[in-house]
Amino acid sequence: MTELLKGTARDKALAPLVAQGWTENSHGTAIEKRFVFRNFVEAFAFMTRVALLAEKRDHHPDWRNVYRTVEVTLSTHDAGGLTVKDIELAQKMNEAAAYV
Amino acid sequence: MTELLKGTARDKALAPLVAQGWTENSHGTAIEKRFVFRNFVEAFAFMTRVALLAEKRDHHPDWRNVYRTVEVTLSTHDAGGLTVKDIELAQKMNEAAAYV
Repeated sequence: MTELLKGTARDKALAPLVAQGWTENSHGTAIEKRFVFRNFVEAFAFMTRVALLAEKRDHHPDWRNVYRTVEVTLSTHDAGGLTVKDIELAQKMNEAAAYV
Repeated sequence: MTELLKGTARDKALAPLVAQGWTENSHGTAIEKRFVFRNFVEAFAFMTRVALLAEKRDHHPDWRNVYRTVEVTLSTHDAGGLTVKDIELAQKMNEAAAYV
């Protein structure tokens, strides 16, 4: 099982994500971001790219799409909070959104 | 603008969808269904198929995906409720789910 991020390692991992619009949920067990694209085609192109990355890692987002917005929540459920898996997928999502 | 479904036409249009697991929201302005697949690949295959159909119709779902589940809400916002666009997309989603 992937270990929960704690202390300084957690702060260090989260800082660049927070700078790019990710926020922690109220329990500190997940990170969230709302991506906004120009239209549905771009939003779904982003989702398709992320879907492949997520399946490859066997680590999947909780996400909601409404037309050109995609609201994402990342958490590692079997660890009960944030792990390096969430940090890495969040970074990949930022890259994927920039690419669209 | 597509007209709101009312009265008998509305009942007639909804009946087959209700029989296939769709429910009305509490205000009667939307229909909802939770699709459950075997895994993420099948859930996202369904979403991809539906994305193409939705974009073609320029009528898009509000949907949330968590691993193998896809929760869908359909409504025609500029009409303030259910129209034939929602009925048709719901039918297409049932077909797409059966195909996966």
